[in-house]
Amino acid sequence: MSQHPQKPWGGRFAEALDRLAEAFNNSLAFDRRLVLEDLEASLAHAEMLERQGILTPEEGARIREGLERIREEVLAGTFPWREAYEDVHMNVEARLIELVGEAGGKLHTARSRNDQVATDLRLWLRRELGEVLQAQAALRRALVAEAERHLGVVLPGYTHLQRAQPILLSHWFLAYYEMLTRDAGRVQDALRRMNESPLGAAALAGTGFPIDRHYTAARLGFTRPMANSIDAVASRDFVLEALSALAIGQVHLSRLAEELVLYSSFEFGFVELPDAFATGSSIMPQKKNPDIPELVRGKAGRVVGSLVALLTAVKGLPLAYNKDLQEDKEPLFDAVDTYKASLRLLAAMLPQLKWRPEVMRRAATSGYALATDLADYLARKGLPFREAHRVVGRMVRELHAQGRELETLTLEELQRYHPLFAADALELLDLEAALKSRASYGGTAPERVAEQIQAAKAALGGEDDGAGGI
Amino acid sequence: MSQHPQKPWGGRFAEALDRLAEAFNNSLAFDRRLVLEDLEASLAHAEMLERQGILTPEEGARIREGLERIREEVLAGTFPWREAYEDVHMNVEARLIELVGEAGGKLHTARSRNDQVATDLRLWLRRELGEVLQAQAALRRALVAEAERHLGVVLPGYTHLQRAQPILLSHWFLAYYEMLTRDAGRVQDALRRMNESPLGAAALAGTGFPIDRHYTAARLGFTRPMANSIDAVASRDFVLEALSALAIGQVHLSRLAEELVLYSSFEFGFVELPDAFATGSSIMPQKKNPDIPELVRGKAGRVVGSLVALLTAVKGLPLAYNKDLQEDKEPLFDAVDTYKASLRLLAAMLPQLKWRPEVMRRAATSGYALATDLADYLARKGLPFREAHRVVGRMVRELHAQGRELETLTLEELQRYHPLFAADALELLDLEAALKSRASYGGTAPERVAEQIQAAKAALGGEDDGAGGI
Amino acid sequence: MSQHPQKPWGGRFAEALDRLAEAFNNSLAFDRRLVLEDLEASLAHAEMLERQGILTPEEGARIREGLERIREEVLAGTFPWREAYEDVHMNVEARLIELVGEAGGKLHTARSRNDQVATDLRLWLRRELGEVLQAQAALRRALVAEAERHLGVVLPGYTHLQRAQPILLSHWFLAYYEMLTRDAGRVQDALRRMNESPLGAAALAGTGFPIDRHYTAARLGFTRPMANSIDAVASRDFVLEALSALAIGQVHLSRLAEELVLYSSFEFGFVELPDAFATGSSIMPQKKNPDIPELVRGKAGRVVGSLVALLTAVKGLPLAYNKDLQEDKEPLFDAVDTYKASLRLLAAMLPQLKWRPEVMRRAATSGYALATDLADYLARKGLPFREAHRVVGRMVRELHAQGRELETLTLEELQRYHPLFAADALELLDLEAALKSRASYGGTAPERVAEQIQAAKAALGGEDDGAGGI
Amino acid sequence: MSQHPQKPWGGRFAEALDRLAEAFNNSLAFDRRLVLEDLEASLAHAEMLERQGILTPEEGARIREGLERIREEVLAGTFPWREAYEDVHMNVEARLIELVGEAGGKLHTARSRNDQVATDLRLWLRRELGEVLQAQAALRRALVAEAERHLGVVLPGYTHLQRAQPILLSHWFLAYYEMLTRDAGRVQDALRRMNESPLGAAALAGTGFPIDRHYTAARLGFTRPMANSIDAVASRDFVLEALSALAIGQVHLSRLAEELVLYSSFEFGFVELPDAFATGSSIMPQKKNPDIPELVRGKAGRVVGSLVALLTAVKGLPLAYNKDLQEDKEPLFDAVDTYKASLRLLAAMLPQLKWRPEVMRRAATSGYALATDLADYLARKGLPFREAHRVVGRMVRELHAQGRELETLTLEELQRYHPLFAADALELLDLEAALKSRASYGGTAPERVAEQIQAAKAALGGEDDGAGGI
Repeated sequence: MSQHPQKPWGGRFAEALDRLAEAFNNSLAFDRRLVLEDLEASLAHAEMLERQGILTPEEGARIREGLERIREEVLAGTFPWREAYEDVHMNVEARLIELVGEAGGKLHTARSRNDQVATDLRLWLRRELGEVLQAQAALRRALVAEAERHLGVVLPGYTHLQRAQPILLSHWFLAYYEMLTRDAGRVQDALRRMNESPLGAAALAGTGFPIDRHYTAARLGFTRPMANSIDAVASRDFVLEALSALAIGQVHLSRLAEELVLYSSFEFGFVELPDAFATGSSIMPQKKNPDIPELVRGKAGRVVGSLVALLTAVKGLPLAYNKDLQEDKEPLFDAVDTYKASLRLLAAMLPQLKWRPEVMRRAATSGYALATDLADYLARKGLPFREAHRVVGRMVRELHAQGRELETLTLEELQRYHPLFAADALELLDLEAALKSRASYGGTAPERVAEQIQAAKAALGGEDDGAGGI
Repeated sequence: MSQHPQKPWGGRFAEALDRLAEAFNNSLAFDRRLVLEDLEASLAHAEMLERQGILTPEEGARIREGLERIREEVLAGTFPWREAYEDVHMNVEARLIELVGEAGGKLHTARSRNDQVATDLRLWLRRELGEVLQAQAALRRALVAEAERHLGVVLPGYTHLQRAQPILLSHWFLAYYEMLTRDAGRVQDALRRMNESPLGAAALAGTGFPIDRHYTAARLGFTRPMANSIDAVASRDFVLEALSALAIGQVHLSRLAEELVLYSSFEFGFVELPDAFATGSSIMPQKKNPDIPELVRGKAGRVVGSLVALLTAVKGLPLAYNKDLQEDKEPLFDAVDTYKASLRLLAAMLPQLKWRPEVMRRAATSGYALATDLADYLARKGLPFREAHRVVGRMVRELHAQGRELETLTLEELQRYHPLFAADALELLDLEAALKSRASYGGTAPERVAEQIQAAKAALGGEDDGAGGI
Repeated sequence: MSQHPQKPWGGRFAEALDRLAEAFNNSLAFDRRLVLEDLEASLAHAEMLERQGILTPEEGARIREGLERIREEVLAGTFPWREAYEDVHMNVEARLIELVGEAGGKLHTARSRNDQVATDLRLWLRRELGEVLQAQAALRRALVAEAERHLGVVLPGYTHLQRAQPILLSHWFLAYYEMLTRDAGRVQDALRRMNESPLGAAALAGTGFPIDRHYTAARLGFTRPMANSIDAVASRDFVLEALSALAIGQVHLSRLAEELVLYSSFEFGFVELPDAFATGSSIMPQKKNPDIPELVRGKAGRVVGSLVALLTAVKGLPLAYNKDLQEDKEPLFDAVDTYKASLRLLAAMLPQLKWRPEVMRRAATSGYALATDLADYLARKGLPFREAHRVVGRMVRELHAQGRELETLTLEELQRYHPLFAADALELLDLEAALKSRASYGGTAPERVAEQIQAAKAALGGEDDGAGGI
Repeated sequence: MSQHPQKPWGGRFAEALDRLAEAFNNSLAFDRRLVLEDLEASLAHAEMLERQGILTPEEGARIREGLERIREEVLAGTFPWREAYEDVHMNVEARLIELVGEAGGKLHTARSRNDQVATDLRLWLRRELGEVLQAQAALRRALVAEAERHLGVVLPGYTHLQRAQPILLSHWFLAYYEMLTRDAGRVQDALRRMNESPLGAAALAGTGFPIDRHYTAARLGFTRPMANSIDAVASRDFVLEALSALAIGQVHLSRLAEELVLYSSFEFGFVELPDAFATGSSIMPQKKNPDIPELVRGKAGRVVGSLVALLTAVKGLPLAYNKDLQEDKEPLFDAVDTYKASLRLLAAMLPQLKWRPEVMRRAATSGYALATDLADYLARKGLPFREAHRVVGRMVRELHAQGRELETLTLEELQRYHPLFAADALELLDLEAALKSRASYGGTAPERVAEQIQAAKAALGGEDDGAGGI
């Protein structure tokens, strides 16, 4: 009777779908990844249909049984995936009908692939963002643990990649902790906002069957059913928001990766990467390449590209569902995989880094890194800061021309630059004193950094308690 | 003594900055937009310096007076902007010194341009995101008002730009209301997360002056001072998050714009744009071009481009501040301006649209838009949905070949397709009945839509009360 | 002796590569696609090493034999791919050593994976861009064939999606032909520019072995060896240029796809998509969804995203090779596959479109599409065009208010708008006359369009003769 | 009579354009930059209209005279720009009518703003790409000049930012020369492909006036008139191609900029930036910040963003002209300005860089940079390369653990690693010998590099002769 016996919409068509078109259209290669979510949503839907009397208890029981068997097949790797059924939904449904007969065909009552795929994808993303949060928490913990472990280690702080002022390595770790904490906040916000159920929106307008969307929403752990059926099937901002959060997160990781590449170079020499996270050269035996940081950095492009792909695809699309939206999955899957792996690798790598405190300390004291302290000294003595800045600038220029460091200055020389310099100015050129002095809130003084470590530990501990909240 | 008397860092340099380089480096053309924020932050900083005894009361008074005079000059348009002072901060400081003398040079004590510009930009963005929220609220209100005003008007709902099922125009308005509400949520989240003070982070490491960052944070309306001074000057995720929220928002507007372009075409004929929001053709007198919706749609590219610009610029940047970060302002300014204007234009245009209910109603009943109802009918009578779908699919195919609509079917014909059809099936082909039947939560039934209008009004009202919260 | 017996750089490392890192680093999943190119390049390299006396004839023979056996295994699907050998190059080399013994280890003399992968990727891209050119040519041919077949069919030309002036359907087809022709030009330019050999650049600096890069370049069909060894391994602009050409091409296809979606809507009704290129709805039996055009349109996002991914990854990378460059392959593979499939689908679909000339003709004559002709008439009679435009604009506004079309105007009415109108003005309101009149070069007059069809056929014919040039 | 006397399409409209909409729609702020091109194209159009008898000689003369007066006003800065005339075209036309009366209104005969703006933009872009080519040539010349000047200077070549093998600084300069040469090739290809005239396509369909498009095309220096009038007004791939070429070019510059930032850091210390191209810190007197390279690097994001903006805007646009296309100008203007300035700055900066040959040389000989040479030695003696690689890898690992360099090895020690080492192996550890040995084509041997300098000079000289070709 129909030329497309396996297609749910076969009745309308007089010709076989062109093979090339079929391949283009086929989403099974990637959407099979949603199979467990599809089963979960179908089970909730079936229960609801039964509760509402749309399915008989017997039909309901058979469907539930069939779905359970399919889940087992999937987990056992024996589920018969078939390309002819163009997507995950059709594969499941076809198998269900094979297993439980005609009743299986009733599962699709009062739903459409439009609300079904939106539901599956939200379930998948919710679970994955949960894993992302865990991976972020692990890296945040690792950063704080390293900060605590290396308290006292000094390195130069850079601006414009020029040595600026000495900082604590712990302070540097905590800077990334702060970024990651905001990154996690964005993921949590995305998670909270997207946790609504599109199921029951049907094709776009709702359905005439007496369904209970609040039941399925609650059953699936959603906060509520979405309030507008058109919006439920047409919108993908939940994916775009997640992609944005991941892209910003990966860009943050790319900064950390860049610094590890720099710091493990021969020139900086601040850190050695563990062998397990570096690789060798096929031609240059002496090389130890920071492949993992480089990939983390390079993959920022990939995640940004995924965000752009979907923003561009959604631009200018009329409501409600359009096939263009099928393009939402691959960039999302790829971005989630990439970001999660990057987080985990960095969390695993950080504790194995071999820092070289003596190299870093030496770097922190050369390069006139304490010049600001001299300018501040003059300012404290009443010289307008701009004038103080000018005095010390000239001092640095002249020392540089002579190949000398600040520490070599005598009091007489200092006073030749400005009479306000007194003996206590020389003490400023001591690294420990300089660090300790930067005791403003959030500053690099050891006392301040120790406080921030405690605050971070408290925050992470508090989060643990609240885990599993969603 | 110095070759760059006007440059704060002039002491170090032996040559004049190459003119081309100077132009490239100069940010005054765009960062002067931050002048009021720069004054506000400077005032708070000066007050704090005085409270902490870093400035004498007299110095403090003179600086405050000078800053006030500058503000008046700016507001009066008489402030002497000078290109030679390469950015807004230097222009303000130079003018301050002119006005109050040497004391002006003490304002920069315990701060750096790194924390200063981060503070200014956060103040600016906070105010602008507040305006964005208002513009979003205005459009959301307009959408709900239009939904209420047009209750009862029917149009075809589309999927794949094919007529799918009839919906209420009010339901369509509310779909955009839902999107805009989430868009506003993203802006609020961005606003909350970015409302922390970098001031006092100084160049990157904090300062040795006994400053009070909590005071300046509170004085400037920030929730708290940022906890890590490196992060405070190095991070721009607050800009990236805002750009993401704006890009997603503008993509949503591009969908509405696309539909207005379609619906105002001769072929759809659903709506006429008000003359005030359309323009004519220089060569074709009959044309009435939907320029404003087209621009709203096209400018989605612009906002996405701004997001990409900054994501790409920040990728791989080591800590802390790098000059690359100067590239944060122009894309942000442009994206905020574009999105705000788009929101306002749409809010102003919506009430002036002339809908054509009769055209839309005619469209909603042709094109087999009620075929789903027939399939659902069979399903309700016990036929598995897949089989019901197939039966009605064949029906549509054959009617289409004959150029007939569903409404022309007799009971006998129906029964020839399937014996389960009875006389009540004919009632399904009535538009009002069909609409009314889609009474699932969030569906297009008038009763459901009316409920959603009330819910939206309540939500908007509640927001009003809470306005000005940040 | 070594902990990584299978890794070419195993000697340097004391620990096993962390498993997670290994998975992250592993490129085999995608770069195995380069295996035939890797074999081809290895064969040329081996021949050259033998000719130069770097390998003995016996070693050369064994290696060549081994490579040939591997090629057979690959083609037969029996090649033993092993994840432990992290990329395609190592898999091939390890297998070669298994097959031919110690001599296999000498193949890597005087080359590095850096120049090897650059060579493989260029060979792959050259072949694929050749296929892209063929697919473009097929679509260009289809566009011209359709233009020829439908000569005489009229539709409204749109600007701002408003009916502007009648055009020939053939003229519309040829507009896309022109775009595709330039798209092909960009691909040819990319192909020509990238066809240079990096082989022999070794790690980055060249090699001390007396190799002959001109020989391998010629042997592999490259125009010349690249002139700078650092550039040879560090640059990926050949990929970026190809991605740009593909992105622009896919954006062009998205415009054609958008028009097919519009024209196949119920409202336009200009064309019916063949069943083989549309799909049905799982819930709405009457729907015939233009899935293929929608996917072609949506995938523009994907190709743009791939371009952005690599631009972002390469931004700010120091010379020479960095691992970030491994991120070049997946976006390139995906973009090539997507664009080729889109071209082929459109070429296959175009001849099967069922146009509805009567619907299009009706549309072309309503909507005041001939108003410009009236304004031009007045201008020809000496009225400044701006004034003529104003006169006809008022005419349209008033007719529109009365629900009348231009064709209903009498001479008296016309003359009431302007006394310059005479009896011949009425003839202007004839569609054929209007079309015929637009006889400027490149215009829509049948005569002009017929000329362009002949020109296009001549151009396509000429290209055929030159095929296989690269 | 009309409420919009100043609008060319005023007759159609009954209401004043909403002020907000007017501001949104107004393009004068940016398109006034096209004024000279608009005048040039108008002049050619007027001449043609007169030659074809569409204008009388007297009308033609008055119009030409008026256009000439306007050009003078523009050049003198006295042209009366008026916001009320929403774009550059209307400003010019309104002024023309003021100056020459009614005849001015006839200039718009047989053209539309659609073909007019496309013509203006192509003229502008053609001139600007010509300037881009000159700026590229200047930088290429500077790179070759520096390569020649510094012949003999050695630095480490890096892969993965690890010291890999010594290279000549000249070789490094030439790598960028090669990239820039391809960048210039892309600009030339874009220039050649876009140099066709849309003028005379009118709104989209051509015109009924007997115009001569070949005349205007030739008069304006275009290769030919575009063959399809729809394509002529609807396509923007000429802008997209230019933006792609600029984006790739700016990404190349970002790599050079990154290396200058690295090399001028305290840690590398290879180069000092001239004071004229660096700036100081407002708080740290000792800093010398590489602002210009940082901005060149950061602005890669900006140019990529501009490309994305237009790709996204054009995606899915139906033919022919849509207002969205107005969004083409700002990203193009910005990208051209940015890239040109970046090229010029780098060309001006390169000759002023102060390289530190002794620092670079020291770096080139440490870090086991000559290990490959030892492995190659063993391979030349018959050891399979893989085995040789392993031997030297172990050697490096053990020396590294002892803090020793390769140069400290004795023959006995070498032989303990492998008996194939003989006395001549020690010579390999000489830097000059190592460099000289990499004499493969394109390699870093001084002889090879000198050849490439000569080849580059010849190529640049040849280009000079051919200048002005387009």
